Amino acid sequence: MNERGAPVNERDYIQSIERGFAVLLAFDEETPSPTSREIAERTGLSRPAVRRILLTLQHLGYVTADGQRWKLSPRVLTIGQHFAATNSIVEVAQPHLLRVAERTGESASLAQLDGIDVIYVARVHARRVLSLNVDIGTRLPAHATAMGRILAAFGGSQVVDRIIDEGGLPSLTSRTITDSIVFRDALHRVRVDGFAIVDGELEEGFLSASVPVRDTKGATIAAMAYSTSRARSTPEQVAEEVIPVLREVAADIGHDLSVLGDRPRVLALGARNTFS
Amino acid sequence: MNERGAPVNERDYIQSIERGFAVLLAFDEETPSPTSREIAERTGLSRPAVRRILLTLQHLGYVTADGQRWKLSPRVLTIGQHFAATNSIVEVAQPHLLRVAERTGESASLAQLDGIDVIYVARVHARRVLSLNVDIGTRLPAHATAMGRILAAFGGSQVVDRIIDEGGLPSLTSRTITDSIVFRDALHRVRVDGFAIVDGELEEGFLSASVPVRDTKGATIAAMAYSTSRARSTPEQVAEEVIPVLREVAADIGHDLSVLGDRPRVLALGARNTFS
Repeated sequence: MNERGAPVNERDYIQSIERGFAVLLAFDEETPSPTSREIAERTGLSRPAVRRILLTLQHLGYVTADGQRWKLSPRVLTIGQHFAATNSIVEVAQPHLLRVAERTGESASLAQLDGIDVIYVARVHARRVLSLNVDIGTRLPAHATAMGRILAAFGGSQVVDRIIDEGGLPSLTSRTITDSIVFRDALHRVRVDGFAIVDGELEEGFLSASVPVRDTKGATIAAMAYSTSRARSTPEQVAEEVIPVLREVAADIGHDLSVLGDRPRVLALGARNTFS
Repeated sequence: MNERGAPVNERDYIQSIERGFAVLLAFDEETPSPTSREIAERTGLSRPAVRRILLTLQHLGYVTADGQRWKLSPRVLTIGQHFAATNSIVEVAQPHLLRVAERTGESASLAQLDGIDVIYVARVHARRVLSLNVDIGTRLPAHATAMGRILAAFGGSQVVDRIIDEGGLPSLTSRTITDSIVFRDALHRVRVDGFAIVDGELEEGFLSASVPVRDTKGATIAAMAYSTSRARSTPEQVAEEVIPVLREVAADIGHDLSVLGDRPRVLALGARNTFS
């Protein structure tokens, strides 16, 4: 398998594509409707370059202009829809995540690794939180999350080295493991236990637990997580009461994936054609 | 406001960006893990061009290679996350959609217009369907959906003309309105009623109802919809029992948006930092 982010021959690299994405990602919480000048400032690109990219993205339907300000258009969501349609685990996992949320009363998530971060690919919130979709695609630092620990522990030494060397194990709370030897020990423990529990290392008071989801060959293809607040539970309670649920459900997801085998096409078409 | 898809001066158009998206969108249900040759066939691009684009996208982290086959990586989801983070309505609407799903026992959606299509920007399924996230970003033809009728009826004559002239009102079932005069009449009726009900025009047996969601200036910024099956309800029942619920909830969404005013930043940061 080639490495994501692998160096690419200069002749083969198309800088315009990089710049196109840089402009799209400049639309965020801080500047939801930026001017081309603001985008130039945020991306470091020249204003004429930003203008040409915006006109191209507008022509393609990904951004719209309203006077001097620009907005992302809903068409950008179609790219994520293609991810869901081409990764059967995203759809297969949904009812299982719902089951975890119902049985535990807390949110359940599925994440995959992206370099030194984890990205939520599916999530079901407990009823109390009331929010359902907005955080798909959200990125969190792998080293300080239970899902990241799972994906590192079962992802091979290259993954672990990258998280330590590129990421640098930054401190996010007073509890974050920032020492590489302690971090490697924690991953060893995860491999022995088969689960990860992280208590307040990402955010004070935030408690999460994760187990691997494996394909038929035993390879870890995603991490499933449960998260709660320290006010509502303790690591000991989670280990005793929640980990068995997560293990059972992760096995069920693996089973459903193996039954589906190489049928992502049928599955995904079914999803697209389900109107009710 | 400039028009999405507006013609752009050739000098200002960056073809590499168009080609980059064409390659990303070639990953779909039919070819979830294509070879570069399959991508070349699907996009009409040359194999050397596809190879350079894939290497660039790989370097940027949007695709990964596994032998001769390529896959979308979860990083593509971050683009959609930026849409949610920059459009406060997506987050504001979630608890309200959940309320509609709970009160009606059916799925509730929010959609916006993209040319001649509608795109789901938020959706909550009724418990019975069990699926939650996979269809955000899904695209449906505007002319044959209740959400599309709302967005056309309240979107101005340019929008209507585009749906008729570019889209051509294709027949999807025996019930689809395909005549432009009948279609304009139907939109007139939607404007008078303030709601749209579409019965089996998208798919036999599929019944949907929609109302506009308006901003403080009265502009329609999204369509909220309820959908069910003809086996479970009739248009008359929906008009009598569901439309009042949709109207009430749409007004609540509009109210929440007006209270938020120009505070998308706080809202979106809150979303990003909500870990439990």
